[in-house]
Amino acid sequence: MSTVKSDTKPYVVGVDVGGTNTVFGIVDARGNIIRSDKIKSTNHIKVEGYIEELAAAIKELAEEAGGIGLIHGIGVGAPNGNYFTGSIDFAPNLLWKGRIPLAHLLSEALDGIPVALTNDANAAAIGEMTYGAARGMKDFIEITLGTGLGSGIVVGGKLVYGHDGFAGEIGHTIIRRNGRSCGCGRMGCLETYCSATGVARTAKEFLTAREDKSLLRDLNIDEITSKDVHDAAIQGDKLALDIFEATGAVLGEALADAVAYTSPEAIILFGGLTKAGNILLEPVKRHMEQNLLNIYKDKVKILVSELKESDAAVLGASALGWEADRKLLTKLTD
Amino acid sequence: MSTVKSDTKPYVVGVDVGGTNTVFGIVDARGNIIRSDKIKSTNHIKVEGYIEELAAAIKELAEEAGGIGLIHGIGVGAPNGNYFTGSIDFAPNLLWKGRIPLAHLLSEALDGIPVALTNDANAAAIGEMTYGAARGMKDFIEITLGTGLGSGIVVGGKLVYGHDGFAGEIGHTIIRRNGRSCGCGRMGCLETYCSATGVARTAKEFLTAREDKSLLRDLNIDEITSKDVHDAAIQGDKLALDIFEATGAVLGEALADAVAYTSPEAIILFGGLTKAGNILLEPVKRHMEQNLLNIYKDKVKILVSELKESDAAVLGASALGWEADRKLLTKLTD
Repeated sequence: MSTVKSDTKPYVVGVDVGGTNTVFGIVDARGNIIRSDKIKSTNHIKVEGYIEELAAAIKELAEEAGGIGLIHGIGVGAPNGNYFTGSIDFAPNLLWKGRIPLAHLLSEALDGIPVALTNDANAAAIGEMTYGAARGMKDFIEITLGTGLGSGIVVGGKLVYGHDGFAGEIGHTIIRRNGRSCGCGRMGCLETYCSATGVARTAKEFLTAREDKSLLRDLNIDEITSKDVHDAAIQGDKLALDIFEATGAVLGEALADAVAYTSPEAIILFGGLTKAGNILLEPVKRHMEQNLLNIYKDKVKILVSELKESDAAVLGASALGWEADRKLLTKLTD
Repeated sequence: MSTVKSDTKPYVVGVDVGGTNTVFGIVDARGNIIRSDKIKSTNHIKVEGYIEELAAAIKELAEEAGGIGLIHGIGVGAPNGNYFTGSIDFAPNLLWKGRIPLAHLLSEALDGIPVALTNDANAAAIGEMTYGAARGMKDFIEITLGTGLGSGIVVGGKLVYGHDGFAGEIGHTIIRRNGRSCGCGRMGCLETYCSATGVARTAKEFLTAREDKSLLRDLNIDEITSKDVHDAAIQGDKLALDIFEATGAVLGEALADAVAYTSPEAIILFGGLTKAGNILLEPVKRHMEQNLLNIYKDKVKILVSELKESDAAVLGASALGWEADRKLLTKLTD
C-alpha cells in the first residue's frame, strides 16, 4: 500500500465489468476520470488470463498518471457482484461460470491494492452519492433502467447490502402477480415492465392489441427497441406516448411501495430510458403520488441521475475504491 | 441527568401508549421488567393532563425502585410515533389530534430525562434485537400481526427510520392491486389480508363463498374474530385451516418481495396471530420460499418473536430508552 504523499494526488480506479467490454479509469477525489481504457471481457475463457490482462492494463494506465503508488483502491462494478465476498456469483452474461473471487484475484495481481466489488446498480448508487444527484443525501434509492431494472438502496448514508450482500433487487419484486415471464424464472417481476426490454414488450403488446396508426408500425414488430419507442414518442406518436404512460404507471406503483420500505428523500433514475425525460418522468411521478400512503405524499423527489452515462459505471465503481481503501486502513489500525 | 453510581443499577422506563391504556415499566439492563403500572390513555382530552398523570405515575414507580435518579432514559412506543421529531402525528386511535410533541412534553415533566419515541412496530423490532429472537442479528425484519400489520426493518444493526422517520410501513404496500379497501383510503394493502382484522375478513369471504360445514358457522358471521378462526383451526376445522393457508399465502408472497429489498437474515413474526404456531408459520414459510428469487432461497429464517406478548410493548419501548440516553450523552460530549 502506498502512503499519502503531500505532493501527489491520491487516485482510485473504477472498473466496470460488462458482458462485452471491461471499461476502467483512473479517477481523482473530485470524480474526474483523468485516464480511461478498456479491454474485451471475452478474450479469455479462463478468468486468470483475463485478470492478467486487466492488471497489466491498469498498471500501464497508472504509470501514465504518475505511478501505481498513487492508487489507493480499486472499485469494481459487475453483474451479480457480491460486496461481502468480493466474488461474481453465477453471472449469466459472463464467460466465467460459478463463483469467481474477482476482487481477491485482482488485488493479488496488483501487489495487494485493496479491491472492493459490488453489482452495477449498487455501484451507480454509490457513484450518485459521491459525485452525482445524491450528494449530501442520506436516504435515497437509485433505479437503473437498462436491459433490466437494477436498484441500489441507501439508508443513513450507507448502501444496503443485507445479510448476504444481495440486497436491493427491486427489479425482481412482483408488480403483477402471474404477469409477464421473467428471465429469473418467475412471473410479473417489475423489470419485465420497466426496462428497455420491458418497453419493447409493451410496444409489441400494444401494436398487436390496438389498431390505431403509429410510426412504430413501419418497423418489424419483433425488432422494435425502447429507442424506437422513444424516437416515435418525441415526434408525438400517440401509441408510443401511451407505452411510456403505461411504463410510468407500473414504475410509479412500484416506487410507491418502495417508499413504504425505506422512506427515501429521493428516487434517482439512471440509464437509457431516462433520455425520454418528462415523457417518462411525468407519468412515473404522477402514478407514484397517486399510489403513495398519505404520510409520504409530496415528499419524495423523482430525479434523473447526474452521472454522465458513458462515465457512470466507471465513476460509480471508482467511488467504491475509496471505500476499499478505508476498509483496509480500518483493518490495519484495529 | 443522573450520573452512573457504581453501587446502583441503571434503569430505563418503557412506555407503551395504546388507544385504551398506557402501560409502562421500569426495566434493567438485562431486560427484566422490575416494576410496572398503567394509566388510562383516555382520562384527559388535553394531552397536558395526560402527561402530568403519566409523569407522576412514572416518578412514583421510580421511587419504589430506588429513585428517579437511576432512570437513564425513557422509550415510548406509540401509534404514528415519529422518531426524529419525538411526536405522535395524527394518530387515529388517540384522543389528542394533530401533532403531539410527546417526547418533549414528557422529558420536560420529568426534569429533562431523555425521552425517545417511535411507533409500536419499530419499538418491537428494537426490543427483539435487544432482548429477543434477534439478539446478535444485524439484518432482520420484525412483522407485528395485530389489528393491523406493522413492521420494523433493521439494516446493519440499526432501525431504518428513513428520511422523515416514517420508514417501514410494509403493511401498506399493495399486495393485491384493486384488492380489499384499507383504512388508509387505498386498496389491496397487505394489512387488509394479514392481520387479525384481515383473518376475520377472509373468514367472512370464505363462509359466504363456500358451502362446506365449519365450526365457524355456529357463530355470527359479522362478529367472527381471528381468535375464533384459531380455535376452530386447532380443532382441525377444514375451512378455518384454509383461512390460515390463504393468509399464509399472501404473507409469504409479500415477504418474498420484502427479502428482495433488504435481504435479511430472518423475518420475525410477533403478535396474537402467531399463537396459531405452525398452522400459520408453515404456509408463510412455504409460500415465501416458492416466491423468492433464486439467490435468496433457503437462506431466510421465519421466526416467532421471543418477547412475551404482555411485556413486549414495554420492553421494546424501554430498549429505546438506552438509545435516548446515548443520544443525549453524544450531544453533551460534542
